[in-house]
Formats: sequence, C-alpha cells, structure tokens
Amino acid sequence: MLGRVNHIAIAVPDLAAAVASYRDVLGARVTEPQALPQHGVTVVFVELPNTKVELLEPLGDASPIAAFLQKAPGGGMHHVCYEVDDILAARDRLAAGGARVLGDGNPKIGAHGKPVLFLHPKDFFGTLIELEEV
Amino acid sequence: MLGRVNHIAIAVPDLAAAVASYRDVLGARVTEPQALPQHGVTVVFVELPNTKVELLEPLGDASPIAAFLQKAPGGGMHHVCYEVDDILAARDRLAAGGARVLGDGNPKIGAHGKPVLFLHPKDFFGTLIELEEV
Repeated sequence: MLGRVNHIAIAVPDLAAAVASYRDVLGARVTEPQALPQHGVTVVFVELPNTKVELLEPLGDASPIAAFLQKAPGGGMHHVCYEVDDILAARDRLAAGGARVLGDGNPKIGAHGKPVLFLHPKDFFGTLIELEEV
Repeated sequence: MLGRVNHIAIAVPDLAAAVASYRDVLGARVTEPQALPQHGVTVVFVELPNTKVELLEPLGDASPIAAFLQKAPGGGMHHVCYEVDDILAARDRLAAGGARVLGDGNPKIGAHGKPVLFLHPKDFFGTLIELEEV
C-alpha cells in the first residue's frame, strides 16, 4: 500500500533561519516560502534528489503545528508523508487493521491540493503519518 | 552538498510490533531484523520505492537510542540521514557554517559500513541529521 515518501515535514519556529541553514550550511536547494492560510502554515520545500523536506512555520492563530512547537520550541520532525494510489482503499485497510485515522476519518484536501489522511501517532510508534493520494 | 535521503530513522520500543504494523497494516515491504551489537541497535528497513525507513530497537545496555526512548517511551522519529559525496568536505563546510558535529568531529563507520557524521539537533531546528558518505 505505501508508495514513495512524498516528504518529511519539520516544524520550525523561524522559517527564514531554517531556510538559511538548509540552503547555506547544508547546501540544499530550497523553494520560495508559500503562505497557506487555510492550512495555518507557511511552507518551504528542501528539494533533494529523491524526495523533499517540508519546512513548516505556523501561520495565524489556529495553526495545526502551534501545539507541537509549544512542546518543542526549537522545532522538530513533525510527520512523514507517504503516497498511496487510492486513499479510500487505504482508509478501509487501516480501519480493518485497527489503526485510527485523525478527524472524522474522511480524506481532506491537503496543502498540496491532493486528498490526504493523517494517522494517529500512537498507532505508529510515535510517528505522525500522512497519506496522500497521487 | 546534501544528496538523497538515505533513510528516515524511527526508534521503537518493540521491533516485532513495529514490523507487523508497517508490513501488515501499512502494506510495506520490510527486511529481516539485523542485530548490530557494536551499534547498540537491532534494525529493520521498510523499503519504499524512493528511500527507506529504518526501524531501530535498543540492543544491549549502552544503546544510543535508550535515552531517546526514555523520553518518548512509545517511540518516535529519531533522525534523517542524507547522503553526501565527500564527508570530510561536508565536515569542513559545516564547521565553517558554525554547525556542531557530534562526538570528536571525525567521521565514524556507521551501521551500514560507511563513514557517517551526526550533527547537533539544536543547530538544525530539533532534527538530528546524519550524513553518510556513499
């Protein structure tokens, strides 16, 4: 069921500083910041040859990463996103396996305009997993 | 400087349970467990089309992931490993950029038999970064 790792998401308190670090110190290619107010984040992608790192900074008062950064003010790895062919089939397989889908259990349109689901980190050893239909 | 994401490492308290979850619930291909006593871990790789997830369980009394699991008993994302062409050039670039290399600053032979460095997570927004020469 799991396909490619679409991205590894890292929550950061200061996107400009994180961009400078990945671009100038680590020598990676980074995209321009993209504000996604409907998702409560500003995003920069670090483009690697085989996948991406998504740097996330909170945007607005109801950012979904605000609570994470309260617990880890310096930032940290937030989730791993895997591609799936069929997100409804994925949801049904997960339900049959006893894994909990966050929210109402139905796919939402994610930050990249594709249907996504998030899985409960307690069901996957502390890792928040996003599934994205591609 | 940064090349491919070689792997995403996840520390888990129970490798057999994690293997069952990734294989049976998420439908991924996993390798046989490999005990690496000199590195203090038992490892399973989850093989995705473009990269790998490395599931790590502590092995022995001096496991480098024991402290992590004391803070996060259920497990969690532990580090991201990027490939580099020349690890000594990488080390010099990082030093010039003010980033701290863990240990004595010199590459060690990592769990895959290749020279590796680990970078201080406080210099990279809470993410422990491993660089591996390939």
